[in-house]
Amino acid sequence: MHTRRGLVLVFICAALLAWQGRALAEGQGDPLPSWNDGAIKQSIIDFVTRVTKEGGPDYVKPEERIATFDNDGTLWVEQPIYTQFAFAIDEVKAKASKHPDWKTKEPFKFVLAGDMKAIATMGEKGMVEIVAATHSGMTTVDFNKTVSHWLETAKHPRFKVLYTDLVYQPMLELLAYLRANHFKTFIVSGGGVEFMRNFTDKTYGIPPEQVIGSSGVTQFQMWDASPVLVKLPKVLFVDDGPGKAEGINHFIGRQPIFAFGNSDGDKEMLEWTAGCQRLCFMGLVHHTDAVREYAYGPDSKVGTFSNALLEEATGKGWAVVSMKDDWKVIFPPQK
Amino acid sequence: MHTRRGLVLVFICAALLAWQGRALAEGQGDPLPSWNDGAIKQSIIDFVTRVTKEGGPDYVKPEERIATFDNDGTLWVEQPIYTQFAFAIDEVKAKASKHPDWKTKEPFKFVLAGDMKAIATMGEKGMVEIVAATHSGMTTVDFNKTVSHWLETAKHPRFKVLYTDLVYQPMLELLAYLRANHFKTFIVSGGGVEFMRNFTDKTYGIPPEQVIGSSGVTQFQMWDASPVLVKLPKVLFVDDGPGKAEGINHFIGRQPIFAFGNSDGDKEMLEWTAGCQRLCFMGLVHHTDAVREYAYGPDSKVGTFSNALLEEATGKGWAVVSMKDDWKVIFPPQK
Repeated sequence: MHTRRGLVLVFICAALLAWQGRALAEGQGDPLPSWNDGAIKQSIIDFVTRVTKEGGPDYVKPEERIATFDNDGTLWVEQPIYTQFAFAIDEVKAKASKHPDWKTKEPFKFVLAGDMKAIATMGEKGMVEIVAATHSGMTTVDFNKTVSHWLETAKHPRFKVLYTDLVYQPMLELLAYLRANHFKTFIVSGGGVEFMRNFTDKTYGIPPEQVIGSSGVTQFQMWDASPVLVKLPKVLFVDDGPGKAEGINHFIGRQPIFAFGNSDGDKEMLEWTAGCQRLCFMGLVHHTDAVREYAYGPDSKVGTFSNALLEEATGKGWAVVSMKDDWKVIFPPQK
Repeated sequence: MHTRRGLVLVFICAALLAWQGRALAEGQGDPLPSWNDGAIKQSIIDFVTRVTKEGGPDYVKPEERIATFDNDGTLWVEQPIYTQFAFAIDEVKAKASKHPDWKTKEPFKFVLAGDMKAIATMGEKGMVEIVAATHSGMTTVDFNKTVSHWLETAKHPRFKVLYTDLVYQPMLELLAYLRANHFKTFIVSGGGVEFMRNFTDKTYGIPPEQVIGSSGVTQFQMWDASPVLVKLPKVLFVDDGPGKAEGINHFIGRQPIFAFGNSDGDKEMLEWTAGCQRLCFMGLVHHTDAVREYAYGPDSKVGTFSNALLEEATGKGWAVVSMKDDWKVIFPPQK
């Protein structure tokens, strides 16, 4: 009796929802209101329409609708320096009193003196040392507390708002549009996975288990009969360049059919997606708007978008979004 | 107009489904029919009831209901040797004609001579060499083809059926019961992640992106303008022992509230889960049934379940399932 009642209810609901679903699919409402009408917006909508059309030649089952997004410069601002590096610099300053040797030791002395040019000159070596010193030697729980507090208080030097307010409204709409069409959205970033997991759920609606990033080695220990994971100053995985394709395989185990990046570090993720053997979508955000955000490309050290990548994207028909021309607004309305 | 109609429909359906949901929750049907009534079965049902009771003191939001399961010996048979090792041995035999040197080279000559005792004597070193030789030097796509074909044809030496037929029916019911209660179920295994992903979806209903395991390094390459990932003979991550707690943090980024294992390699996963700071459930399958499956414990090289772990589990109130006493049936009915 109960089982039959259940079946009848499920049937009624399925019929009602299908009817409503058709009405929605017939197109009330713009799913991407912050995107200007044009070829890029149309290509996104066309792609989603085709892969979700049951019985159509390009139909993809919901569980195979994997979409991967770079984070820095694709979902939020990455200038003038990567947000995670801004955090690391603030942490060096906050921890300086416990490390008197830093006053005379490179690269820390440059940070404490506010000499960003000297840090930039040191290149990757200096950055790695600063990140290692501020991202290891504590438990994962303590690290998360520090990051959360910083994200709730630190302000961007130009826009004077929280970093999490500097996410791109058009990309939030794109994430929501894909999820409404039963895509599973992932972040695949060169940034630290544990840093990102402190804001991705709240900011993008992407849960921790769908965040892929670079990571350090952790070590399981028992402290007073309580388990902890201690962060060690040792790299486990670099999720950048070819590492993005490798990371997608390692963490997801499926090939995406949709991927979005903004720089040379995303090239292999896009190439890997393009090899999906069916209809797939590859996109790049091009930072062309110095007034509302930033304009940069091949010469930028942060988020380098080389001419070679631009040529590859154009040649292969990947969508290159011009921030200036394709986006009506950049950031969400201030709360 | 359309929006209002949509809201009304969603409301009607929500009400109907809530009504039906309550009827189901009131308990028609046994969610774990292959489990004998007793303390273990009751403790599972009590736990699920408490963490899903909205407004109750132990309520856990659906997105935080993370459940992790070991694979070998917890979800399927691991005797007389790990299934993945059986695959590797068959692969050595299949590839021998291309490697004439194997006839005289340890450990391959033992495999080709069928001398399992000699392989066992070599211990981990021999096993690692055999796995490296059979799990690298090809693309991920080719590896998956080989594994899939093997899984569709190779038979277990004692039970004479496919390895994927030797999954535990009571655990399939447990996975389904948890998912029906909005748990997200993950595998956290010492086995190779790429090996497992060839059957976990079909066999357990666990999609590739929810499978965590040991892994080798892969390398992105372009072959004739097509992207491939080549498997290298180099370990990236060992998901065993403390590595299980580290892997859970690395891949999921949330602490489970439910975990099941069967051997010393699961100790730290269970300890990490036990540190979840709220109601959580830790379980171990104890292989006590030589007639229907196998009976083994501290002296087994495969799936060692030491007395120390048994004492820890008993002392901490973890559920220790006796296969002989707690399970009505072991395997699903044969098709």
